Amino acid sequence: MPADAMSPKITVELLRQLRQVMKNSKYITEPIQAYIVPSGDAHQSEYIAPCDCRREFICGFNGSAGTAIVTEQHAALWTDGRYFLQASQQMDNNWTLMKMGLKETPSQEDWLLSVLPENSKVGVDPWIIAADQWKNMSKALSSAGHSLVAVQDNLIDVIWQDRPARPSTKLIALGLKHTGLTWQDKVTALRGKMSERKISWFVVTALDEIAWLFNLRGSDIEYNPVFFAYAVIGMSNIKLFVDSKRLLDPAVREHLELDSPSKPELTIQCFPYESVYTELQAVCAALAPKEKMWICDKASCALTQVIPKSHRSAIPYTPLCLAKAVKNPTEIQGMKMAHIKDAVALCELFAWLEKEIPKGTVTEISVADKAEELRSQQKDFVGLSFPTISSVGPNGAIIHYMPLPETNRTLSLNEIYLIDSGAQYLDGTTDVTRTVHFGTPTDYEKECFTYVLKGHIAVSAAVFPNGTKGHLLDSFARAALWDSGLDYLHGTGHGVGCFLNVHEGPCGISYKTFADEPLEAGMIVSDEPGYYEDGSFGIRIENVVLVIPAKTKYNYRNRGSLTFEPLTLVPIQLKMMNTDLLTQKERDWVNDYHKKCRETIGAELERQGRKEALDWLIRETQPIV
Amino acid sequence: MPADAMSPKITVELLRQLRQVMKNSKYITEPIQAYIVPSGDAHQSEYIAPCDCRREFICGFNGSAGTAIVTEQHAALWTDGRYFLQASQQMDNNWTLMKMGLKETPSQEDWLLSVLPENSKVGVDPWIIAADQWKNMSKALSSAGHSLVAVQDNLIDVIWQDRPARPSTKLIALGLKHTGLTWQDKVTALRGKMSERKISWFVVTALDEIAWLFNLRGSDIEYNPVFFAYAVIGMSNIKLFVDSKRLLDPAVREHLELDSPSKPELTIQCFPYESVYTELQAVCAALAPKEKMWICDKASCALTQVIPKSHRSAIPYTPLCLAKAVKNPTEIQGMKMAHIKDAVALCELFAWLEKEIPKGTVTEISVADKAEELRSQQKDFVGLSFPTISSVGPNGAIIHYMPLPETNRTLSLNEIYLIDSGAQYLDGTTDVTRTVHFGTPTDYEKECFTYVLKGHIAVSAAVFPNGTKGHLLDSFARAALWDSGLDYLHGTGHGVGCFLNVHEGPCGISYKTFADEPLEAGMIVSDEPGYYEDGSFGIRIENVVLVIPAKTKYNYRNRGSLTFEPLTLVPIQLKMMNTDLLTQKERDWVNDYHKKCRETIGAELERQGRKEALDWLIRETQPIV
Repeated sequence: MPADAMSPKITVELLRQLRQVMKNSKYITEPIQAYIVPSGDAHQSEYIAPCDCRREFICGFNGSAGTAIVTEQHAALWTDGRYFLQASQQMDNNWTLMKMGLKETPSQEDWLLSVLPENSKVGVDPWIIAADQWKNMSKALSSAGHSLVAVQDNLIDVIWQDRPARPSTKLIALGLKHTGLTWQDKVTALRGKMSERKISWFVVTALDEIAWLFNLRGSDIEYNPVFFAYAVIGMSNIKLFVDSKRLLDPAVREHLELDSPSKPELTIQCFPYESVYTELQAVCAALAPKEKMWICDKASCALTQVIPKSHRSAIPYTPLCLAKAVKNPTEIQGMKMAHIKDAVALCELFAWLEKEIPKGTVTEISVADKAEELRSQQKDFVGLSFPTISSVGPNGAIIHYMPLPETNRTLSLNEIYLIDSGAQYLDGTTDVTRTVHFGTPTDYEKECFTYVLKGHIAVSAAVFPNGTKGHLLDSFARAALWDSGLDYLHGTGHGVGCFLNVHEGPCGISYKTFADEPLEAGMIVSDEPGYYEDGSFGIRIENVVLVIPAKTKYNYRNRGSLTFEPLTLVPIQLKMMNTDLLTQKERDWVNDYHKKCRETIGAELERQGRKEALDWLIRETQPIV
Repeated sequence: MPADAMSPKITVELLRQLRQVMKNSKYITEPIQAYIVPSGDAHQSEYIAPCDCRREFICGFNGSAGTAIVTEQHAALWTDGRYFLQASQQMDNNWTLMKMGLKETPSQEDWLLSVLPENSKVGVDPWIIAADQWKNMSKALSSAGHSLVAVQDNLIDVIWQDRPARPSTKLIALGLKHTGLTWQDKVTALRGKMSERKISWFVVTALDEIAWLFNLRGSDIEYNPVFFAYAVIGMSNIKLFVDSKRLLDPAVREHLELDSPSKPELTIQCFPYESVYTELQAVCAALAPKEKMWICDKASCALTQVIPKSHRSAIPYTPLCLAKAVKNPTEIQGMKMAHIKDAVALCELFAWLEKEIPKGTVTEISVADKAEELRSQQKDFVGLSFPTISSVGPNGAIIHYMPLPETNRTLSLNEIYLIDSGAQYLDGTTDVTRTVHFGTPTDYEKECFTYVLKGHIAVSAAVFPNGTKGHLLDSFARAALWDSGLDYLHGTGHGVGCFLNVHEGPCGISYKTFADEPLEAGMIVSDEPGYYEDGSFGIRIENVVLVIPAKTKYNYRNRGSLTFEPLTLVPIQLKMMNTDLLTQKERDWVNDYHKKCRETIGAELERQGRKEALDWLIRETQPIV
């Protein structure tokens, strides 16, 4: 991204206004000396709606991760290595960029302690800070004589004049054909888990968990088919908090059985979205002495603190998060169908690119548009699952690159092209990366590509015992790169939702040992090692893979083994491989994979009458000898 | 281990006495309803002195890990899978065995909550419970209305009539030749770390850290050359707490410069071992408001709580632990010399075994004795570094097996033999496992051995970036076993001290992601994958390896790469390998390794005139074709 790609947001006036409201008794009981503006929304979503882009509003930086803190004298933004360049370009000089991960960079806590006057009050909106983050920050501040205070009115909203409204899009009710389980079955299963652990209530705050539980989808947040809502589930109560206008739709009313519930314990009581706080207070007030309530420790501080400590059981991930991660047979079938359609679109795209690139008119943006157009021709297409990463040459080395008019490069026969894209279909979510060259790659580019491919295969073909956590597989993806002194600075895989968020927990494949749960048959994750040469090129090979039981020669302690089955079926460019560097086992893997691509996608291309793409597919899936 | 191997300890009378003192106001202010007896000593040592074997005294179980809890009605012992059989044999039926790691087994906290009457008090000796364990237990108890109380008199000691005295063995002062750094240099370096982090005092409680810091060794605990002591280091103070009789030795006085200190800030003040509590209180009373004191969060609750919270900085491992883990050139040289001598003894042992086994008189115990005798012939031998694991056939499947007269098996031409042994020399510590067959192994035994070997090589030959944590390498050791549905249920490697404990932190190679620190050049760890077939055989191949810089083709972001150099140089039995299962790279590794064994150990065997062992070595290091 060239240095003149973006001009910084001018924030002098905004900061002046914010500092005024930090002392204005209309919004706060006592003046605060610092105000924290986290990234997320009240549901701690990774992607957020425009009305929740408060951190971007105050500082100009619009990356997906970052926290702004404004004191009477200073304004600082913390973000990680993916965004150092972008943040420095989007912020004016009222802001100090705090580069997380560098030794010399203070933590937010240490920095606050160094700049605050004695006995300071630091404010934050308790709805957008997670309970575990609140706890850490509060502890650090009070150890130095300061305090963290919950400011009920969001002070950014106070000064944000034309703040967009919270979206309230049409809801889609999904039938058994797509979900495999009715919402009633899901609630019953959840209650089983609750009664096993002697839990009588569960507060659901994550938007994808609510969407999954009720078999509903929305489009409140771009790329994520979710809708703003809360749910509070008891052993004989289901309380759903959602904009009431959305419940006027007869299809939704019928789906939720609002007018004719089948059983009392499966009757949904609907409340306005905003009333979750008071309603949860009422539920808590009526709790018997030993009753326990589940809430995720990543839920908002505001809701968490409604639950008295003696009744609160904070958990690192919820039973819904785990149930959603293990796909049922219908969901698996849907994911397979979605990936076949997605592969059809990509084969068509690559066939088209081969013809068009020599004309010199194809750009990063035009490919992204073409890919979306081709996907949209497929049945039950809903939208993209994330902004397409379409990058030529040096842009490929920017891991979270998104082409903009100012950075847009033309595809040519001389540079590597990387495309990481995916879509939402009614039956599933896709996410695939291919790295290709339309001319002749250099030996070095092929060498690097082949190491990445070896890593991709090492994970995809790995056999491992039931109960293995994903982080134990991460090094398999890196071993070939490490041998040559190379590496990539991101995780190897993330969970993928089924017509839901393209990133979901609680499993993944990463050197970061976050609280990841063991892999189980039915889970779906990505396998995406890469290599990035700053200023030159980026390589990534990504398939979405399904965890399946593996047949092994022995079966130690009857534990059983697992392996992966690729759901993504798009050829991996043979031209980019140095096949001398592959073992016979790896060559066999590539040939088997391409055979499956040819058979499965070939049949669908034929059915759809896409002759050129079929020719391309057949050419690109010739076996290596 | 046959079922009649041990008879249980009769504990009726002991439990009666303990329950009486639990109510005796001579020892406690208010009666307690439960008493916890942890495994460790006041320094949280892994191996302990006889006077500290309190848990064994009360229940009979003498394994290395386990916690006993006695209530008015119940007595229960928690231990892990290594010890289920042994514990069930050593305890009488007054005790309930709590098998940790099984789903149905309650945690100590949950069990206490289920059996305690309301508002109970649970006692524990605050000196032998670690601060972090105290915190967890205390939190769980108080959340249910109970409380954890510190009982100053150890109640086991009260009823233990012939309890042995605390050892106070002769101290050995190590010179620069063995340590590479004077204790004065080490104190100065430590103060550098302290001032970097604005810490003014550091309380040292781990025995190996104290031994390393002062370049002193003792023999208070079998196998571990440490001595009972504490140290409190300030920026201009060095307080050493040790039995004063030990300081009468002129060599020790001179080494510590007790009579003629060179500089005031390097003057050691000596105090009796027992006075650490009151002296630390005095230091804390004199602290300035912002002064901070380091203590490890695994230190005893008693000492930790002396430090007021506002002054306490609890750390998961100390700067001494890290400094000790990264060996300096003198220590590395010493470790290499120790491993050469150790290999000489083992070559001699194996040559002797080949001759003696056919006579039918060699047993697990007699091999262990012979190995010790041969090691003791080597220069600067001090003792063993742990009890020798010498196991024939099915005994090899008991991971922590130690031959006893009742279990002792005879070595034969029909069964696999596994020996895991090591020694302390003045210049270094060794730990090596070899698995051999003196007749003809079955195809299955060879297959399993070869998978373990592949795992051993995968770790030993791994190349990985600077900054990689050991747990990221663990799966390399398992991949070949996993592929066939096999596995082993222990970690792959542990840190090894230099003429210090054979197990040390903070690095290791394990699927358990404890707070392990990144591997650095100069660290020394073991590489010991295995495979255990219950009732049949055990296989383990263990080398001690040194972390060294690796030369790689490229150098991503100038991070540099690391790999391992084996310090252990004992042939790996070719007869046990199915070489068809090895890749060319693996065969090359075996041949290179054996060439190094032959050259280095061959030269030393020649020098020592050990002709038979040399012949054996040459035969066992023929290259594979």
